[in-house]
Amino acid sequence: MARGDEFERIVRLQATLRRKKIDALLVSQPDNRRYLSGYSAPDHGIQETSGFLLIPADSQPFLLTDSRFTLQAEAEAPLFQVEMYTKGLLNLLERLQKKIGFLTLAFESDYFLHSAFLRLTGMAAKRGLTLRPESGLIEQMRVIKDEHELHLLRRSTQLNEKVFQSVYHTIEPGMTEREIALALDLTMREMGAEGPSFDTIVAFGTNAARPHAVPTDRELQAGDLVLIDMGLIYQGYCSDMTRTFVAGKPDQTFLDRHRLVRQAMLAGIGAIRAGVSGAEVDRAARRVLSEAGYGDAFGHGLGHGVGIAVPEAPRLSPRARKQLRAGMVVTVEPGLYLADWGGIRLENMVVVTEEGCEVLNHDTTGLDL
Amino acid sequence: MARGDEFERIVRLQATLRRKKIDALLVSQPDNRRYLSGYSAPDHGIQETSGFLLIPADSQPFLLTDSRFTLQAEAEAPLFQVEMYTKGLLNLLERLQKKIGFLTLAFESDYFLHSAFLRLTGMAAKRGLTLRPESGLIEQMRVIKDEHELHLLRRSTQLNEKVFQSVYHTIEPGMTEREIALALDLTMREMGAEGPSFDTIVAFGTNAARPHAVPTDRELQAGDLVLIDMGLIYQGYCSDMTRTFVAGKPDQTFLDRHRLVRQAMLAGIGAIRAGVSGAEVDRAARRVLSEAGYGDAFGHGLGHGVGIAVPEAPRLSPRARKQLRAGMVVTVEPGLYLADWGGIRLENMVVVTEEGCEVLNHDTTGLDL
Repeated sequence: MARGDEFERIVRLQATLRRKKIDALLVSQPDNRRYLSGYSAPDHGIQETSGFLLIPADSQPFLLTDSRFTLQAEAEAPLFQVEMYTKGLLNLLERLQKKIGFLTLAFESDYFLHSAFLRLTGMAAKRGLTLRPESGLIEQMRVIKDEHELHLLRRSTQLNEKVFQSVYHTIEPGMTEREIALALDLTMREMGAEGPSFDTIVAFGTNAARPHAVPTDRELQAGDLVLIDMGLIYQGYCSDMTRTFVAGKPDQTFLDRHRLVRQAMLAGIGAIRAGVSGAEVDRAARRVLSEAGYGDAFGHGLGHGVGIAVPEAPRLSPRARKQLRAGMVVTVEPGLYLADWGGIRLENMVVVTEEGCEVLNHDTTGLDL
Repeated sequence: MARGDEFERIVRLQATLRRKKIDALLVSQPDNRRYLSGYSAPDHGIQETSGFLLIPADSQPFLLTDSRFTLQAEAEAPLFQVEMYTKGLLNLLERLQKKIGFLTLAFESDYFLHSAFLRLTGMAAKRGLTLRPESGLIEQMRVIKDEHELHLLRRSTQLNEKVFQSVYHTIEPGMTEREIALALDLTMREMGAEGPSFDTIVAFGTNAARPHAVPTDRELQAGDLVLIDMGLIYQGYCSDMTRTFVAGKPDQTFLDRHRLVRQAMLAGIGAIRAGVSGAEVDRAARRVLSEAGYGDAFGHGLGHGVGIAVPEAPRLSPRARKQLRAGMVVTVEPGLYLADWGGIRLENMVVVTEEGCEVLNHDTTGLDL
């Protein structure tokens, strides 16, 4: 991670804090924590945090954690002063409050437990602190990717395609959805990924009719369609790609529907540029399916942002009124789902530019039929 | 899952709700959700919930989820009426409130986001509802395991040992910590586990001096000590075991320290029975290490509960004043950590009984030196 990027992010956030008259912000959301500091320890659920950032509006930021993580925090987050909470977070916050003297403390309402809020309220009353629930402060910064982030997203996508190809060539009748999913997860790690960026989806035949299918022990039979939706984390950045193909020779129905979904994807990608709303892009892709009579067969939004997390803002959906901006990275993933037949989804990731977009995926599996 | 167990749990919880003058409880914590209903979908972080239970104090309970999970919920939780929230949780809660007429709604403060609480507060004001943050209501029930749970915990432990042995016999110089950890995770799934119950720890030599070591690319050399701390989930129930051994011939220092940790574990296990406090058990094991001059080398608590989650209540630690009760399941895991040398930890799981305890582990790797 280039330290300059993080420095710039912190300075930008501090300007926002001063403008909002917040003296200090407590950051608890793991992706936001990593984005600002480089500190990569994940939470094992919100009830087992790996630490917090405390960002004063006008002085050096702190990283608060416990003894298990101090070495890692110091190595990964050199811009931060690492403090260990041995007597609990509140005790340490109180000590830092006396030292720095903040009076208005903001916290991330969308990733802060109600019980923790109750305890913080007690401390705030005692110290004369004003608490300010905030939402989306750092998420808003994260939607626009800088050059270093775009580099990592390109690399993440490349690696994801390499993993896909490596397993794709081993697929044969008799293998189960679970076996293929496991092979993908394993290959990701062998090839240097931190792990999958979400639960890998492998679905055969009618199982592919469920957009969020979970791999089962169903065995692949010749002629089955195969839907694979996969992503990995490379140096903190996620990828996300879907391909649908047939084990063996596809029939005409598959070919026709696959071509239709491909046209929808291309229509969506073609509609993307800075200044266009997420709803307009969604509409461009959805129209292709609707006009072919498959309007009801596409029940989810067209896409979502990708970065340190997946999904993240922005959304491409019928209700997404916000305009896209250059530097956003989104998926375009139309699908066609028929309970008695199966499903086809195709998904590429793109970077929004002023003039249009840059498609990050180059894998053509099934796209040249 | 035996449905009778869940029925009994719900009825018992409803009695508690009536006693506490709570009309309905909203359950958001995934382990509690599974314990009461059998519904096994995990959350992907608290920001992506797989659903809620709504338990009225005196009528049939509801399972609230979205379209991705309704089929699974109906299949796994037949005692519950499954309701889909298509317009958000609040909208559905409001509808059910009109139907059932609850006036006091409790929620799980330890697994409820502050932002969700703010939204719930708005709805409560509108509907004249009183909100009641609650903590530990279901966790307290979960500490005492019934016969079916003990059966699954025994099976989980057996499978964990089988996986350990299967990989143990393949370990040889040149393998990395990450490779062994991956082999363990893979073998778990191949042998029928849902997955690891926590991040598998494999640590060689000085890496084992960190109690929560994360596997690295360090290669095993002949004579290195190897610490493996692993557990799996079998039909919803966790196991947890630690063994430490040497790749090759152990030297006298290792043998002496290993014997000492073993004595500490046996002293801890020997002190366990219903009515004894967690602190007393911790003290019995800790004394063995302290008297040998290693008091400072054992920095964590002696053990913790295991069930649907790991760790869970109760704790065995110097500050654990609560008395153990029959049917609790705890780990006993003393350790000895020396930064320049390495670490040894040994861990077995036991069921507390009136007279003493039942040790669930039978693996003797390194325990017969």
